[in-house]
Amino acid sequence: MPSKPEIRPLERDDRPVIESMLRQIPEFLPFEVDVALELCDAYLDSGDGSGYHVFVAEVAGQVEGYICYGPTPVTDGTWDVYWMAVAPEMQSKGVGGQLMAFAIGKIEEAGGRLAVIETSSKPEYERILRFHISHGFDVVCRVPDFYAVGDDKLILVRRLT
Amino acid sequence: MPSKPEIRPLERDDRPVIESMLRQIPEFLPFEVDVALELCDAYLDSGDGSGYHVFVAEVAGQVEGYICYGPTPVTDGTWDVYWMAVAPEMQSKGVGGQLMAFAIGKIEEAGGRLAVIETSSKPEYERILRFHISHGFDVVCRVPDFYAVGDDKLILVRRLT
Repeated sequence: MPSKPEIRPLERDDRPVIESMLRQIPEFLPFEVDVALELCDAYLDSGDGSGYHVFVAEVAGQVEGYICYGPTPVTDGTWDVYWMAVAPEMQSKGVGGQLMAFAIGKIEEAGGRLAVIETSSKPEYERILRFHISHGFDVVCRVPDFYAVGDDKLILVRRLT
Repeated sequence: MPSKPEIRPLERDDRPVIESMLRQIPEFLPFEVDVALELCDAYLDSGDGSGYHVFVAEVAGQVEGYICYGPTPVTDGTWDVYWMAVAPEMQSKGVGGQLMAFAIGKIEEAGGRLAVIETSSKPEYERILRFHISHGFDVVCRVPDFYAVGDDKLILVRRLT
């Protein structure tokens, strides 16, 4: 078990580390990485005003994961968890769970009622889906063929207190 | 029956007409109108590159409705119909149906497989929901309490040819 990660806001110097980490994760396609980085850039340019909140997890001085979430536009109390990732060599060591618990805590502090994750039904995402379910999310919706033919969108929801 | 509307791209001079029309439609709350106008502004600033395509319907030289749609990010062939509106005095006269048919035709031309609409389960939106169902959309999903407590998100899908 590594030491407990320190969770802190994303800084500009973290950007290449995040990019390299995302590109090493086989589940993420190149265009998905580009979208994930766009959200980081929006946050680096405009902070929380971008609509995105981005935090990194540092373990022994190294950035090993990050999470990106924000209030869902046009809703009262719903927040999206847009993206999270953990470096391949650090997966299954609790970093992801601590990032998620951190984000959920922040969302609750801000008065959030509902956390929402949209994800793919692709078999490659099954491990990610199981991670979210083990962190209190339920699959409430499926939009057939949304991402591509045979690749449905699943909507996961966790009710907050 | 009025003359068939002429459908053409949104221009900067239409902006106040669209704003005034949206503010006259009782179903749309002020913050929803603001979001609808943000999408129009993004299109006026950057054209299709904004990710939004916006067309207006002119009847007898007056702008009486508009539709805003665009390719859904991170999908292959899915398009969102983000917003449409028809001036209150011109509703139920076919303008909305012609705008929708126009947008669906354009989406099909661009190779779209799926058109998606997200809408509210509020009773005030029931007329809008019936409009979409009569234009070939099916409700495939419901996310309980998404917009607010008691206000679910409905996801409607129309498969294209």
